[in-house]
Amino acid sequence: MIKVGIIGATGYTGVELVRILSAHPEAEVVAMSSHSHVGKAFHHIYPDKTGIMEDVLEAQDPSMIFSKADVVFMALPHGHAVPVAREGLSQGKPIIDLGADFRFKDKAVYEQWYKVEHTGEDILPMAHYCLPEINRDEVPGTRIVGNPGCYPTSVILGLSPLLRRGWIDPKRIIIDAKSGVSGAGRKMALGSHFCEVNDSIKAYGIGTHRHTPEIEEQLGKVAGQEVLVNFTPHLVPMTRGILSTMVADLTEDVTQEQLREAYRESYDAEPFVQLLHEGTFPSTKWVYGSNQCHIQVQKDERTGRVIVVSVIDNLVKGAAGQAVQNMNLLFGLEETMGLTMPPMFP
Amino acid sequence: MIKVGIIGATGYTGVELVRILSAHPEAEVVAMSSHSHVGKAFHHIYPDKTGIMEDVLEAQDPSMIFSKADVVFMALPHGHAVPVAREGLSQGKPIIDLGADFRFKDKAVYEQWYKVEHTGEDILPMAHYCLPEINRDEVPGTRIVGNPGCYPTSVILGLSPLLRRGWIDPKRIIIDAKSGVSGAGRKMALGSHFCEVNDSIKAYGIGTHRHTPEIEEQLGKVAGQEVLVNFTPHLVPMTRGILSTMVADLTEDVTQEQLREAYRESYDAEPFVQLLHEGTFPSTKWVYGSNQCHIQVQKDERTGRVIVVSVIDNLVKGAAGQAVQNMNLLFGLEETMGLTMPPMFP
Amino acid sequence: MIKVGIIGATGYTGVELVRILSAHPEAEVVAMSSHSHVGKAFHHIYPDKTGIMEDVLEAQDPSMIFSKADVVFMALPHGHAVPVAREGLSQGKPIIDLGADFRFKDKAVYEQWYKVEHTGEDILPMAHYCLPEINRDEVPGTRIVGNPGCYPTSVILGLSPLLRRGWIDPKRIIIDAKSGVSGAGRKMALGSHFCEVNDSIKAYGIGTHRHTPEIEEQLGKVAGQEVLVNFTPHLVPMTRGILSTMVADLTEDVTQEQLREAYRESYDAEPFVQLLHEGTFPSTKWVYGSNQCHIQVQKDERTGRVIVVSVIDNLVKGAAGQAVQNMNLLFGLEETMGLTMPPMFP
Amino acid sequence: MIKVGIIGATGYTGVELVRILSAHPEAEVVAMSSHSHVGKAFHHIYPDKTGIMEDVLEAQDPSMIFSKADVVFMALPHGHAVPVAREGLSQGKPIIDLGADFRFKDKAVYEQWYKVEHTGEDILPMAHYCLPEINRDEVPGTRIVGNPGCYPTSVILGLSPLLRRGWIDPKRIIIDAKSGVSGAGRKMALGSHFCEVNDSIKAYGIGTHRHTPEIEEQLGKVAGQEVLVNFTPHLVPMTRGILSTMVADLTEDVTQEQLREAYRESYDAEPFVQLLHEGTFPSTKWVYGSNQCHIQVQKDERTGRVIVVSVIDNLVKGAAGQAVQNMNLLFGLEETMGLTMPPMFP
Repeated sequence: MIKVGIIGATGYTGVELVRILSAHPEAEVVAMSSHSHVGKAFHHIYPDKTGIMEDVLEAQDPSMIFSKADVVFMALPHGHAVPVAREGLSQGKPIIDLGADFRFKDKAVYEQWYKVEHTGEDILPMAHYCLPEINRDEVPGTRIVGNPGCYPTSVILGLSPLLRRGWIDPKRIIIDAKSGVSGAGRKMALGSHFCEVNDSIKAYGIGTHRHTPEIEEQLGKVAGQEVLVNFTPHLVPMTRGILSTMVADLTEDVTQEQLREAYRESYDAEPFVQLLHEGTFPSTKWVYGSNQCHIQVQKDERTGRVIVVSVIDNLVKGAAGQAVQNMNLLFGLEETMGLTMPPMFP
Repeated sequence: MIKVGIIGATGYTGVELVRILSAHPEAEVVAMSSHSHVGKAFHHIYPDKTGIMEDVLEAQDPSMIFSKADVVFMALPHGHAVPVAREGLSQGKPIIDLGADFRFKDKAVYEQWYKVEHTGEDILPMAHYCLPEINRDEVPGTRIVGNPGCYPTSVILGLSPLLRRGWIDPKRIIIDAKSGVSGAGRKMALGSHFCEVNDSIKAYGIGTHRHTPEIEEQLGKVAGQEVLVNFTPHLVPMTRGILSTMVADLTEDVTQEQLREAYRESYDAEPFVQLLHEGTFPSTKWVYGSNQCHIQVQKDERTGRVIVVSVIDNLVKGAAGQAVQNMNLLFGLEETMGLTMPPMFP
Repeated sequence: MIKVGIIGATGYTGVELVRILSAHPEAEVVAMSSHSHVGKAFHHIYPDKTGIMEDVLEAQDPSMIFSKADVVFMALPHGHAVPVAREGLSQGKPIIDLGADFRFKDKAVYEQWYKVEHTGEDILPMAHYCLPEINRDEVPGTRIVGNPGCYPTSVILGLSPLLRRGWIDPKRIIIDAKSGVSGAGRKMALGSHFCEVNDSIKAYGIGTHRHTPEIEEQLGKVAGQEVLVNFTPHLVPMTRGILSTMVADLTEDVTQEQLREAYRESYDAEPFVQLLHEGTFPSTKWVYGSNQCHIQVQKDERTGRVIVVSVIDNLVKGAAGQAVQNMNLLFGLEETMGLTMPPMFP
Repeated sequence: MIKVGIIGATGYTGVELVRILSAHPEAEVVAMSSHSHVGKAFHHIYPDKTGIMEDVLEAQDPSMIFSKADVVFMALPHGHAVPVAREGLSQGKPIIDLGADFRFKDKAVYEQWYKVEHTGEDILPMAHYCLPEINRDEVPGTRIVGNPGCYPTSVILGLSPLLRRGWIDPKRIIIDAKSGVSGAGRKMALGSHFCEVNDSIKAYGIGTHRHTPEIEEQLGKVAGQEVLVNFTPHLVPMTRGILSTMVADLTEDVTQEQLREAYRESYDAEPFVQLLHEGTFPSTKWVYGSNQCHIQVQKDERTGRVIVVSVIDNLVKGAAGQAVQNMNLLFGLEETMGLTMPPMFP
């Protein structure tokens, strides 16, 4: 059994890690930390875990947590992972960071968009951005896993087959993304208040969302050239789910069937990515609670553009599930282990 | 008092007309028809109207309804308005059609997208597409009002200030639109079943939605040249509301402040269109139940594009409210009469 | 025009007062105060009010506010109304308190349930609990209006016809009540976080909810004897609305038709209370945004009990709408003035 | 591997059986039937099952289905199970009926409440009502499993500890129950239309709901005497979940601690029933997607009554999960096999 520690276990990505890991056949949660609930039983914070996870939350002491665990998941917001990663390196144990601190090769990009200083430039070379369907070969030797952001996961899986083939203009990509409220976490904010969100949709962060440079850097690696996107996120009255709608200019005269074939080539062997059957467009509920990504691609003959729609559960494939997928790869387990729970519909 | 008839009073646009007209100081509903509820009291179909509208529904006999009314609202789906309009012409009374039958100048476009024959080519010249903020001068003499579609209303109000000034490329407009479920009407369909919609967002009708040609025709008139758009609609788990996110290439080197000034010029005198203060992006709940349209415009310096977000209540400014606004113009009343109810928030 | 001041204008009952009063033909909001938003324009806090209410929020200085206003609505939580009421008395102007400070005749009951000291025992005799359908005659001369709580409004309207006739056992009343989230206000709390509420229902405050003694005191006055209730509230994933389900033992052998007749007698002349037609049970959406209360009564022959279901919009008939109704009575206006907006359905 | 057939696989209980069984280590779905989708692949009806269940739906031919399967789940509405059960008896294989046809010992009660004739009086003695926590010993030899209704499951688990001890008056039980919309199934009905349900709660079936006699019969067996209840169901704007609030008169002078001790005695060894810690009241989302039942019990000193609140996921513990639990018992498997998925929160 892999012994797992979770730093920041009482946020929504933390509790999702607990949900997934509590049913994982080869992993066991041995330490969970929290800022504000030290000393309390986990199921007193999350009563849904009554009878499932009743361990006591401990203080956020990386040294102590690494000493008990074979791997540590870091489920705090960005800006706190560097010292934890250093502790992991010193104890020779890997960290999987669900925040943004290890997602960028260039710390200047991070600092520009996140508005905080990055104090770990020296260890950045030891970190890898790990989205298994794109670069699973790089994961096993990694000491620091930069677990992808939720929006970027949906976008990168959605556009890679086209960019890899050079079929779309990398400077003319329009991304319209929609997220459920859990993406903003459990912290209290007016923007997450039920009455402000319910029965309503809004746009936010236009032109400034921090997932923009992550998308551009990763898509750029896939395309082999610079990628520039417009990324507009929206908040939808639902708990979980991300749907990204991507519109791009076709630079090759490909048919709808060729487009579908490209996606089949990319994903037919992937257990967590499904190209939906022709004419069916994705719905976030269809991946609810699962590690699945559903995709549809559609050529628009009138405009010569291609529209790609992808959906994921932001807390699973967009966060905790993908992190466990990376853990499986790190430890040489079957990649799908503990991640085969079907989506819950309705 | 203007005597009003409503054909198709028990659909969602019909009941919204009843809500608005029951509080209109110069109008009175004198006849309401229904396919399936003839002979029943209106409040037995809509118990929310108990004590407010308890009249009995009659059969859909246009001749009878026009004989009682000064104006008839046609709230049936497309394909049924031509004979009703002929009856109105013969009795010398105007019709306001909330369906699509009189929205196109060219019947071939209608037939291509709606897949039904248009049997009223001869009376099309008497019809006008009436979106007051764009062409209110044309309304008063009209005998047949083609009331705009819900998505097009949000898009046309959102993009007209830019197209009128020639600031964006009319062939490179990407529209990502999101609608509440009431846009699909009260008819029973799996796609409107609570469990299929709740806590989920989905895309639909990619490249094929019938509002596409309506948007292109009307924006083309504003731009003075052909307009080509990608239009992708989505279904959001909310009852009312449309949010349209529009991305376009700037063809002029305008600043963010010039963009805002353009919208102020267009809409400062408009009672039903509000440019939100800088940095605030629209939310559909902020116009819930009102005839308001909220807009925000944002330049993206990185990509040289402009993003416009607009919201309306699809049943009010997107249907029944705009129809009453047109009625007010037709009868020489104050344009805002009966339409000043504030949005309901929260 | 009645000049109105609102203390606590940026809470949900405050903004609802603004919505209603902005459309009231004989009232005008002249002063609005806030704890945390002093100096800001109202529509910057509530963008839905753009173009509708753009006045600047001022500090909560009762003396200043009463000096401008003919009447002051107090829309803060309990515990703050006594000094404001004293200021009103000193300036000879009425206060309508939407909190609980003036709802009880006996300060000991208030202190026991609300766990704070009541510092205004001397002015309690000048206060009246004003639920117009029950005691509208007492309103006009009142200087301090204790505006009823939301749950109690639905319950008192629901049970009064039976208790007044002595048809049910006053010691055996079981009340199961369900509220939308706006009842908890705009303050940030985990219990109002979208992800904790959405797609879920929960019970809370079992046996301890503060509306219990208010219900018992007021029903006791109607019954002419002591009333004892079990009151169990629930939180429902909806923004507005209260539904109360009340079960009581019939002490008389009355028929279903006699039960309905009793409600008709009580409410046929009431503009804001509707007995639904036989077999139709209330739905909160049917009163959404309106000052209406819908009621159904049903005898259960098997058990000899009667079930009453009532619904209101907690922010309107359960708070701001009822407060304006009381204002109309205080100032000798038509009781329904500014309150005839129909419910919004769907 | 147990070979499983599902009759009525495309309804909501059917698809939930597919979800659960597709992850069950000792069961395999070998046949699925449907009325209206014969010949279609399952994931074309439920795209969420893409990559998970892509078998083709067959006609509802019980003989054929039993010939392939070791056990058949019957997931059609009531009124269709008798001939299927006969076929199972003839082939010597058990049936688990998720409808109501085998829930009653007395066919007259069934016929009175369900308004259809029961044609299987002769095989009723071979059927058992199987709620494992109450009567798991009776399951193994059963040929026909009457799987409990959703509301009754929540109520029976909630009240049994009190009735078994004779602590409450069996003739004075008031049950107020709230269900998500999936309880009404996937069939299209105005009452399940998103816009009629969203942001609203309503009561229905007052005094007439068919789960009433099921509750009374089963609680009567537990109590050893006749039980009479008032049962009032409500529809809540959520997809899954049932919350039952039960109020009863205490007939013994027991303390709050004794009440809790009674529940601990009943349920401490039960893997699927959790007594929440003191002061925490159940929320349906806390059992979402799981086979768990959460319960809280609270004495109300003022009235001498006890309030019990229980929650389940209506599609899991209230239907498909409990059915699989019964299958496990029938086949001598670990009772929890395939049912340990944690609830999904948020």
